[in-house]
Amino acid sequence: MGAVLLGVGGPGQHHTWLDPEIPGDASVDIRWYIARAQQAEAARFDHVFIVDSQFITPDSPHHYLNRLEPLTLLSAVAVHTSHIGLVGTLTTSYNDPFNIARRLASLDIISGGRAGWNVVATGDGGTAGNYGRKEHYDYATRYGRALEHVRVVQGLWDSYEDDAFPRDKANGVFFDRSKQHALHHIGEHFQVAGPLNLQRSPQGQPVIFQAGDSDEGRDLGASVAEAIFTHAASIEEGVAFARDIRARAEAKGRNPEHILIVPGISPILGDTDEQAREKEAAIIGGKSFDRALKELGRPFGWHDFTRYDLDAPFPDLGDLGDRSFRTQAERIKKLAKDNGFTLRQVVQHGIESRRSPFTGSPLTVANEIQKWFEAGAFDGINLTVTVPSEFARFVDEVLPILRERGIARSEYDATTLRGNFGLPIPQNIHTAEKAA
Amino acid sequence: MGAVLLGVGGPGQHHTWLDPEIPGDASVDIRWYIARAQQAEAARFDHVFIVDSQFITPDSPHHYLNRLEPLTLLSAVAVHTSHIGLVGTLTTSYNDPFNIARRLASLDIISGGRAGWNVVATGDGGTAGNYGRKEHYDYATRYGRALEHVRVVQGLWDSYEDDAFPRDKANGVFFDRSKQHALHHIGEHFQVAGPLNLQRSPQGQPVIFQAGDSDEGRDLGASVAEAIFTHAASIEEGVAFARDIRARAEAKGRNPEHILIVPGISPILGDTDEQAREKEAAIIGGKSFDRALKELGRPFGWHDFTRYDLDAPFPDLGDLGDRSFRTQAERIKKLAKDNGFTLRQVVQHGIESRRSPFTGSPLTVANEIQKWFEAGAFDGINLTVTVPSEFARFVDEVLPILRERGIARSEYDATTLRGNFGLPIPQNIHTAEKAA
Repeated sequence: MGAVLLGVGGPGQHHTWLDPEIPGDASVDIRWYIARAQQAEAARFDHVFIVDSQFITPDSPHHYLNRLEPLTLLSAVAVHTSHIGLVGTLTTSYNDPFNIARRLASLDIISGGRAGWNVVATGDGGTAGNYGRKEHYDYATRYGRALEHVRVVQGLWDSYEDDAFPRDKANGVFFDRSKQHALHHIGEHFQVAGPLNLQRSPQGQPVIFQAGDSDEGRDLGASVAEAIFTHAASIEEGVAFARDIRARAEAKGRNPEHILIVPGISPILGDTDEQAREKEAAIIGGKSFDRALKELGRPFGWHDFTRYDLDAPFPDLGDLGDRSFRTQAERIKKLAKDNGFTLRQVVQHGIESRRSPFTGSPLTVANEIQKWFEAGAFDGINLTVTVPSEFARFVDEVLPILRERGIARSEYDATTLRGNFGLPIPQNIHTAEKAA
Repeated sequence: MGAVLLGVGGPGQHHTWLDPEIPGDASVDIRWYIARAQQAEAARFDHVFIVDSQFITPDSPHHYLNRLEPLTLLSAVAVHTSHIGLVGTLTTSYNDPFNIARRLASLDIISGGRAGWNVVATGDGGTAGNYGRKEHYDYATRYGRALEHVRVVQGLWDSYEDDAFPRDKANGVFFDRSKQHALHHIGEHFQVAGPLNLQRSPQGQPVIFQAGDSDEGRDLGASVAEAIFTHAASIEEGVAFARDIRARAEAKGRNPEHILIVPGISPILGDTDEQAREKEAAIIGGKSFDRALKELGRPFGWHDFTRYDLDAPFPDLGDLGDRSFRTQAERIKKLAKDNGFTLRQVVQHGIESRRSPFTGSPLTVANEIQKWFEAGAFDGINLTVTVPSEFARFVDEVLPILRERGIARSEYDATTLRGNFGLPIPQNIHTAEKAA
């Protein structure tokens, strides 16, 4: 069965600045990120995960307004940790593959093989304006670019075979020129000659993460992802998602076991189940309606919903959202239509849906995690808890139960992310071709 | 008078892999870079400097073949040092201004105000092929883009005023929306809306470095640089260069004192002047003719000179080099023509010109540095010595003499690069406009 993989998100993605435990400048304080990663490493977590975005307005939620670039951040974390994986978000829509390949390979080498890339195609349409484009790429182009981009980056990562650098001082041989390979990629979206000016890392290539629930998103994940971030409301939904992804992957000729499903979960822990439910009610009740109304705009390109009557039927938005987070936008439109919801009801429904299936005493939460894991609803979890005391409670009270049951790790299996995830090191494609 | 500014280049730029002191994998070993930066910081150096390139072939010199991306590297160094400046090379030809602005601002915040950007426009024409272009930008376009690029990046760095984030938990005020400013840049080469999603750093903006000896290069430096890397063969040349740059800057309305001239120098130290000269002769004699012949090709787009008869007149190269390192290419053509040199003589001349004006006993070298500094030939130096024992010798034997004479620092003046360089913190442009 193996162990439940354990990840945790960085503070940049959460609405937590008002929490007394969290410094107001946590999102730009490298010491904070290093301390959180060290806390997670001490608990034998597999990875930390940093989200990203490149578009703000004065109306953006506060956690978008001011944050460090993910790989610059993770490189600093890399040299103050030794085992934990370092997963950063980088968009394929507004980066050159050559630069992405170099920066991730550099992080992978600096960290001794712990880099992961969360591939995103960018949903915020406004981002286009920061990169010289009048309009964001349409949905199909975005996903077409994403797939080709990842393939190019992976091709560049194989520019050198593993043994390309003998560094033989006695004979003056620094490198073996027969083991450097140009890519010569000419595709629909990218032309990249190569080779990359960087050797392979201890894990061969950084691990590819991806999220995205649309048909295009699932297909991209099935094509290239080795780990998938997702959200599951129930075991059944989680199992169905995992089966769908693996069936798609198998149809593409991949080994379905080489894709790990890692949904985000937010456990809410109490001394008893009842206390935990009270805590959850307080969290949900405390969530500001105004903030939820603002965040409802995100899948629709940060559409301003304050202009509508809250108690009139949910507005007709036409094709708004088609260039942004389309699946989410469609889901919201369908929810409103199927239930005849007003705008207020849609917002309330969003707030209510924050209820976590992982609410309860440590024993209840541990049982639930085990149930999901053994049912095949996930291979691991990505905790979205970043208040240090809540994180510590999960570590101190839930993890020991999972460890006793043999489904959580007490020690790292490896010093690389790939090693701890149980993923194989991809063979260099040129070495493979020579052997064939 | 102040102190001679002290910088040192990273191992990635040197031909040193065969040295017994230097590990064969130094160029990709982050521990090596951290140790070198710590050695320089202990000696109160102002900055370390990391060069870069994005184009290789199997024939590239070995120090191009395999190196870490500069900012990923420097972010790791940042969190193991506390005072030394961190200067990285990033090209304006193959990066989006928004990404450059974010990554440098992130490094500046992570390091507590120690980031510097060495602005280059890329001379290696082959780089184009790694970024979807058939041909490299022509010389004028490259420099036009570079100037506009830096202006955009500086504009993005002012997206937030210094006091934009009150982070007042008691009153729930995270940020002051009147202190976030979009850029709305629409120029010849770039359109960038902004704002950048990152606050200003302790030094306001990273320090701009630049090199480039052509008319266009000097103009770019005079327009935007706060520190200029250069090469000077004599005091007279150095003084003339500094005067020219400062006159150009003044003509552009800048304070000429806010540009620091920091040439690269390679001191060769001996117990006596005679011993140092012997050492120099051995270094020059040991430099391989074949390697020098290969490196002669660089300004001409890595032109292969092995195809020519070494003892025939220097070949007619037409306009080769015009899109690469033009000034260097023109200088070599002129040298050959003026002297009627053969190819062999041109290569030999290149090897001979490695002779350093800073060869001698520690006292001689200290005297020479003082002479240049007091004559106004430079404001500081950028050491290209990276063998640790040679660096230590400079620190242990030359620096104490300069300190005794009051022209080298014993302690840092500040914790920021800008502070140690004596450069003012640029006022946020929007704050300035409000005050006006």
